Amino acid sequence: MRATLIYGAGDVRVEQVPDPVLREPTDAVVRVLRSCVCGSDLWPYASRRETEHGDRIGHEFLGVVEEVGREAAGLTAGDVVVAPFVWADNTCDFCREGLQTSCRHGGSWGRGGVDGGQGEAVRVPQAQGTLVKLPVGEDSALLPSLLTLSDVYPTGHHCAVTAGVGPRTTVTVIGDGAVGLCAVLAAKRLGAERIILMGRHKDRTDLGREFGATDVVAERGEAGIERVRELTGGDGTHTVLECVGLKPAIETAFGVVRAGGVVSRVGAPQYPEVPADFGVFLRNITLTGGVAPARAYIEELLPDVLDGTVQPGRVFDCTIGLDDVPDGYRAMAAREALKVLIQP
Amino acid sequence: MRATLIYGAGDVRVEQVPDPVLREPTDAVVRVLRSCVCGSDLWPYASRRETEHGDRIGHEFLGVVEEVGREAAGLTAGDVVVAPFVWADNTCDFCREGLQTSCRHGGSWGRGGVDGGQGEAVRVPQAQGTLVKLPVGEDSALLPSLLTLSDVYPTGHHCAVTAGVGPRTTVTVIGDGAVGLCAVLAAKRLGAERIILMGRHKDRTDLGREFGATDVVAERGEAGIERVRELTGGDGTHTVLECVGLKPAIETAFGVVRAGGVVSRVGAPQYPEVPADFGVFLRNITLTGGVAPARAYIEELLPDVLDGTVQPGRVFDCTIGLDDVPDGYRAMAAREALKVLIQP
Repeated sequence: MRATLIYGAGDVRVEQVPDPVLREPTDAVVRVLRSCVCGSDLWPYASRRETEHGDRIGHEFLGVVEEVGREAAGLTAGDVVVAPFVWADNTCDFCREGLQTSCRHGGSWGRGGVDGGQGEAVRVPQAQGTLVKLPVGEDSALLPSLLTLSDVYPTGHHCAVTAGVGPRTTVTVIGDGAVGLCAVLAAKRLGAERIILMGRHKDRTDLGREFGATDVVAERGEAGIERVRELTGGDGTHTVLECVGLKPAIETAFGVVRAGGVVSRVGAPQYPEVPADFGVFLRNITLTGGVAPARAYIEELLPDVLDGTVQPGRVFDCTIGLDDVPDGYRAMAAREALKVLIQP
Repeated sequence: MRATLIYGAGDVRVEQVPDPVLREPTDAVVRVLRSCVCGSDLWPYASRRETEHGDRIGHEFLGVVEEVGREAAGLTAGDVVVAPFVWADNTCDFCREGLQTSCRHGGSWGRGGVDGGQGEAVRVPQAQGTLVKLPVGEDSALLPSLLTLSDVYPTGHHCAVTAGVGPRTTVTVIGDGAVGLCAVLAAKRLGAERIILMGRHKDRTDLGREFGATDVVAERGEAGIERVRELTGGDGTHTVLECVGLKPAIETAFGVVRAGGVVSRVGAPQYPEVPADFGVFLRNITLTGGVAPARAYIEELLPDVLDGTVQPGRVFDCTIGLDDVPDGYRAMAAREALKVLIQP
């Protein structure tokens, strides 16, 4: 089959690789209907060291079950399924606590002999725990929105949930990428009374307004902090959803959060230390979030996607075939595309 | 009256200062029965720049109301009262949320013309909101334990509460100072099933065991982390109460916390950045805590102190008069005393 490999910074290729087969009785093989490129794929795309062998890449996909191991109960060939962006047994103590990203028998796509999501098919370890069946056909118009259940939508939701967003909560979302926009959607769904979106790409913040943002702040750094404070009577917001992962974003987060408030981060941190200094301590600010256990949220988020109440698939503004994946990376890295959908 | 001033690192003096008088109708004047030296007083004692004027110091005291302003309702001359370590109106939005440390009309002892606690008397601003009446006499044997309601006991409690300690929670407490020991007491009171105390002063950790610690780890750094992990099947504890404030302590905290767990810090951070790196992000660790709104907890903690269920006053291992305060600082800085009680 064909699959995507990354050979180094800026060097993504689609190549022939062995077809996936069942290796463990807990495996399934899934033919990919839709995959996509993640903002977090852009970190290795920007900086991965060159290798001769290349590494499989891609961690978001939905598809059709083709083969099922004898211990992957509940799955049948032909099922349409979505995979969260890590695989997990969904039965260990961490999984039962809703932290499938720390599963004792789980792992990441594209590592240790497991396929990446940006290919024609995937061997899914711990298939029974990992995959969630979707009550739709292979040609459903909902596939883009359902695909977001793999990562970006639950990631935005995780950010809002860990921050404690609810009615009477004011929210600042930092970042107008796909995760930031999904965080807006999630905050709105959880009843936030005010959602300030910080971003400077008008087409993206316009979508953010449709997703529920009540205010948009295009300024960055100190000017951005000042603007959010102006909008909130000087106090900042109860919660801040940091959906970028760069140091200036987390600095801004501490600048716009209200005393006693929460900064939640889901942007993969590209910094070793957080500026949670004495001033942050005096103001009793909490820092939470982390890599989202998407699996924990899929059942909860699915109904609103199925009935069209939310349309997180609108973050996809570009659809390509598998052979065009290198162009998709280039377009996303150049901010020409918000999020690229792949139809193998 | 006599009061304590700090003139620079290592230079604490007891001097004559003007007697406090009512200035605002919301003031009261309190004659101090007991005060003490705080671990956080040792930071300026270690590093304060020399001044000619000196600054008032001390933020923990209980005493007897002597004069009451006309807008300080509910207080009467003769009342025995305890003061939390910041003063606050206890009516603003932050106070109503239990964050009196961010009171819109509050402030710190020893600053801006307000007396410090280590003296014979104190003018108390916002007296109605700040002071809590104690149903004891001036000669009560409970005064030391009641004095801890000013800071160390609610600070330990705040650490445990913000960390989410409860039944079925495992806890690591880092630091065997007075706050660490009070955090043990608070975690025990909140029902923690296991409390690992990290500290290397045997007399202190012995008291920690009496307060509820189930295990003591004397090792520090990597060896200490390894030991806590051994004790917890490799996982670490659900919560970590960081009661030191130095960088190695917060590094240890991230090392011993279980995935999905919480690090709460109440040790005043003597570092500008927290090592909450990508690994901490992957493990979904929350960092919380901060300066404790002691006022929010006094009513809740008071009954157990009054009936002797808890005896946080046992952290005082040395009692001195006001003139001996400079010696008290020296003894605490040299770790000869755990916590020094002052009887003016």
